[in-house]
Amino acid sequence: MKTIKPLQERKNTATLLIHCPDRQGILATVTEFLNENRGNIVYLGQHVDRQEKIFYMRVEWELEKFSIPKDKIGEYFDTLIASKLDMDWTIHFSENIPKMALFVSKMPHALFDILARYTAGEWNVEIPLIISNHETLRPVAERFGIDFYHFPITKENKAEQEAAELELLKKNDIDFVVLARYMQILSSGFVKNYPNKVINIHHSFLPAFAGAKPYHAAHQRGVKIIGATSHYVTTDLDAGPIIVQDVTRCSHLDTVQNLIRKGRDLEKIVLSQAVYKHLQRKILVYKNRTVVFN
Amino acid sequence: MKTIKPLQERKNTATLLIHCPDRQGILATVTEFLNENRGNIVYLGQHVDRQEKIFYMRVEWELEKFSIPKDKIGEYFDTLIASKLDMDWTIHFSENIPKMALFVSKMPHALFDILARYTAGEWNVEIPLIISNHETLRPVAERFGIDFYHFPITKENKAEQEAAELELLKKNDIDFVVLARYMQILSSGFVKNYPNKVINIHHSFLPAFAGAKPYHAAHQRGVKIIGATSHYVTTDLDAGPIIVQDVTRCSHLDTVQNLIRKGRDLEKIVLSQAVYKHLQRKILVYKNRTVVFN
Amino acid sequence: MKTIKPLQERKNTATLLIHCPDRQGILATVTEFLNENRGNIVYLGQHVDRQEKIFYMRVEWELEKFSIPKDKIGEYFDTLIASKLDMDWTIHFSENIPKMALFVSKMPHALFDILARYTAGEWNVEIPLIISNHETLRPVAERFGIDFYHFPITKENKAEQEAAELELLKKNDIDFVVLARYMQILSSGFVKNYPNKVINIHHSFLPAFAGAKPYHAAHQRGVKIIGATSHYVTTDLDAGPIIVQDVTRCSHLDTVQNLIRKGRDLEKIVLSQAVYKHLQRKILVYKNRTVVFN
Amino acid sequence: MKTIKPLQERKNTATLLIHCPDRQGILATVTEFLNENRGNIVYLGQHVDRQEKIFYMRVEWELEKFSIPKDKIGEYFDTLIASKLDMDWTIHFSENIPKMALFVSKMPHALFDILARYTAGEWNVEIPLIISNHETLRPVAERFGIDFYHFPITKENKAEQEAAELELLKKNDIDFVVLARYMQILSSGFVKNYPNKVINIHHSFLPAFAGAKPYHAAHQRGVKIIGATSHYVTTDLDAGPIIVQDVTRCSHLDTVQNLIRKGRDLEKIVLSQAVYKHLQRKILVYKNRTVVFN
Repeated sequence: MKTIKPLQERKNTATLLIHCPDRQGILATVTEFLNENRGNIVYLGQHVDRQEKIFYMRVEWELEKFSIPKDKIGEYFDTLIASKLDMDWTIHFSENIPKMALFVSKMPHALFDILARYTAGEWNVEIPLIISNHETLRPVAERFGIDFYHFPITKENKAEQEAAELELLKKNDIDFVVLARYMQILSSGFVKNYPNKVINIHHSFLPAFAGAKPYHAAHQRGVKIIGATSHYVTTDLDAGPIIVQDVTRCSHLDTVQNLIRKGRDLEKIVLSQAVYKHLQRKILVYKNRTVVFN
Repeated sequence: MKTIKPLQERKNTATLLIHCPDRQGILATVTEFLNENRGNIVYLGQHVDRQEKIFYMRVEWELEKFSIPKDKIGEYFDTLIASKLDMDWTIHFSENIPKMALFVSKMPHALFDILARYTAGEWNVEIPLIISNHETLRPVAERFGIDFYHFPITKENKAEQEAAELELLKKNDIDFVVLARYMQILSSGFVKNYPNKVINIHHSFLPAFAGAKPYHAAHQRGVKIIGATSHYVTTDLDAGPIIVQDVTRCSHLDTVQNLIRKGRDLEKIVLSQAVYKHLQRKILVYKNRTVVFN
Repeated sequence: MKTIKPLQERKNTATLLIHCPDRQGILATVTEFLNENRGNIVYLGQHVDRQEKIFYMRVEWELEKFSIPKDKIGEYFDTLIASKLDMDWTIHFSENIPKMALFVSKMPHALFDILARYTAGEWNVEIPLIISNHETLRPVAERFGIDFYHFPITKENKAEQEAAELELLKKNDIDFVVLARYMQILSSGFVKNYPNKVINIHHSFLPAFAGAKPYHAAHQRGVKIIGATSHYVTTDLDAGPIIVQDVTRCSHLDTVQNLIRKGRDLEKIVLSQAVYKHLQRKILVYKNRTVVFN
Repeated sequence: MKTIKPLQERKNTATLLIHCPDRQGILATVTEFLNENRGNIVYLGQHVDRQEKIFYMRVEWELEKFSIPKDKIGEYFDTLIASKLDMDWTIHFSENIPKMALFVSKMPHALFDILARYTAGEWNVEIPLIISNHETLRPVAERFGIDFYHFPITKENKAEQEAAELELLKKNDIDFVVLARYMQILSSGFVKNYPNKVINIHHSFLPAFAGAKPYHAAHQRGVKIIGATSHYVTTDLDAGPIIVQDVTRCSHLDTVQNLIRKGRDLEKIVLSQAVYKHLQRKILVYKNRTVVFN
């Protein structure tokens, strides 16, 4: 199902994401570098963690009149600025549309939400493929015209299947992975291939109710609010850097089934908001926490 | 696209929705009527508006062992109870799956959200058709396997087109209509055919920013929170009984485009929540206000 | 500081709180008992936990024309109804103003919020005394004209001091205790004297971040939302029945100090809302969970 | 009632608030000016309104080692930078504690909330006096040890009384005024003396329900969410620049009295949050909208 229409025209821009030890003048140095080379800044976000003494920055500028050729920007920036200031940095170009793979199990709500946004042109992304450990959602993939791969997972075949999945991801130049209620735990080996590039949605307000069956646990505890948490997957289960969280009220009137129903709306929105921030290159990760620019 | 699977088994139940002048003993009278006839109550909600002295009630019971035949329940209830207590009442059977028509224009987000829930089996409803004043969303309808009718509307042909739409709705036994960002105002004549049976989503926190371009108006006013409102359509524009409202925070950082983007998530969830309450027969309307049972 | 003025006139009513095994006709039986004896019902709330098969009810009626004398209502209700239906029940009269003791340490925000409501006449309560393990807040108590007792607590004197506190509470006919950021853990022995009658505010979204320094832990974990939880104190730390929870958003911009500042507003409101519900007799506890009527 | 203790040590800093036409290099120019003169930046916030092409900035730096004398900073900044870049700017020093006057009528909740924070040392402010058109809250002022002035207002004496109030404010060097549920409309003449320096709390989600009795209007309309709005007072009633808004859910169960009760908690928190932002010098006003820095 092809895109109905792109919602926004996208400018030809470059985006730098930076973090480094804080010191005087970093902001001035970076913005001057862009200004002097006729880079019209369209977004500037900066944050200083004064406790850890870390400087974070996201700057996006138009390439049209920029005097450094696109393929030289990284080199110039590294030589002239980054190497002198101990910067960790990445550069991203709006022309390069990232490729995202979806992992799903049986529940369709988060998958539908993502495919609807994709089809509506809300996101600057390509989704070449969907991977699942069940056949259940193949019809959804087919209706949206996206390749669907079935990798059943058992204790015995897990290592082998993950290897095959990884090969498929590499072959398709997948940049990042979204677990849209994928009910399997990825092995450390898998996760290490995509550091801060696997986004999961956990159906609780982490760190409360990590692990299995959080709605049952929430009901049992008698909480008055339930939540959902999107985070980057690390090798610690449900303990990776949090990207977005949201909550909704519940009460003694809510059965576990009701919590599950209310939770679906939270889960899909919270996951899609995290994907959107990731696509916008607005997330920096440091010491298992995120800086999420507005 | 056929349903993936129904999420819940549905019991064979009847539901009474009642409102009447408040007096002593109504609740006891109704529950005894059900108990004496072996109706196992699975839901009981009641509310007394002590200012207006109105009693509201929703009661749902299992029909399996109920001693009054299904097609006689209304008659018996009216004769034995309702007529004596000046009740306005309706009865609904879970076996009768309601038929819903969707009206859309060009924006797909609310349509996708509804069709995703429909396909996932979240709702006990049938959607025989989608009506639009534009061709834009026909591909979406087709992919989900739902008939799509194009009724272009102009000042000149509006009365005629609405008459044709109404005929189509009648022919398909449509019970209620959902305006999923349908950008036309329905005439009074149309609305009167479906009293409290046309659900609209307005993209503001009503009564603020009624009418056209609410996000532009919200941006202009500099509000710090935006909202969405689902309501029954009446002959007064954006003034019908409110069913569900929700809000999200914004700030000086949000352009109008950002408000529109954030608003889409609100709109689709708020509309779908209203449809769900309507399908569950949990809404009573009195004096342009709703009682929405939990 | 005497009450500025009572905000509402209070009617002379009785309130029954009931829970019992669910069966047909309980609601009808209780309401008929009140109707037949000319008790004008001003509030009726009921809830059936269909999984646990427990019936919960709160009913409040005017005593003015009620035909059973106030001091006989309990006996009549028990004999005619409660004993036959295995009910746990309590009865409360609006004329009996409950007595509340406050326990505080050094932080004044929750204390001020409670005393402000008390002085403004928002609540139907008496506060004969404040107990603290520090002298810090004595000036606040004095300005509001409330007796302040200093019980310094050490490991060695804890049992002794709690015994003295209990004696003071008994002497003052204290009905329930509110821990307004009291930074001591009450012993099991103390808690058992006031089952479901000690209300605490914990400065996190329980069960996340139970125990000490929750804002530090929340900052460390990088959560995007912080919360506060009011609950009845049981012998398990921070694990008692939850009454009210609320949350507010935070981000990478928030230092621990900021979380503490934002949290103060949550804490005081969430605690006062719980106290209000308790005073209204709108809370039932069953199996470590609460039913909180609207 | 004197401050219990200041919650935070406050550094000796200067804060610049700037807005001007956007152009390249402003940020670099300002930060270099501070860096070159050894001003250690402790806060930097900037925002570009790309539609209006306006640049906004808040920068705060330590004065300890700053090489320009405090009383010359403004002159230097204006000569070297501001005048060249068409800047509107103000400078504020943490050592200068602002003086705030409170205007109240009969309702104490917002007054108590402010005085509690003041007494607890949450805010860097002095409150020399409270003005009211009623005697009702004099006892509250007295208990907190703050001068209370009674100015009864009638149609006939309004101009005269406002003149007397203004004189009292001038005499006490009042920097800004907070209307803590002051139920009078200030005249344009009064407001013009304190442009963007009178903070009001309106008990609705503006622009919905401007004017009198918003809770009654909200109940009548049947909204599902109520709100409160703090804003700077302009000569247009309830139409000034919005600072903070918040909302809470309501339902058909809520009487007008309940909405008023729930609203009190919103009002006091929303007003105090606005005062806090104002005291932190984190608000810029442009074209009837606010930029509120984090």
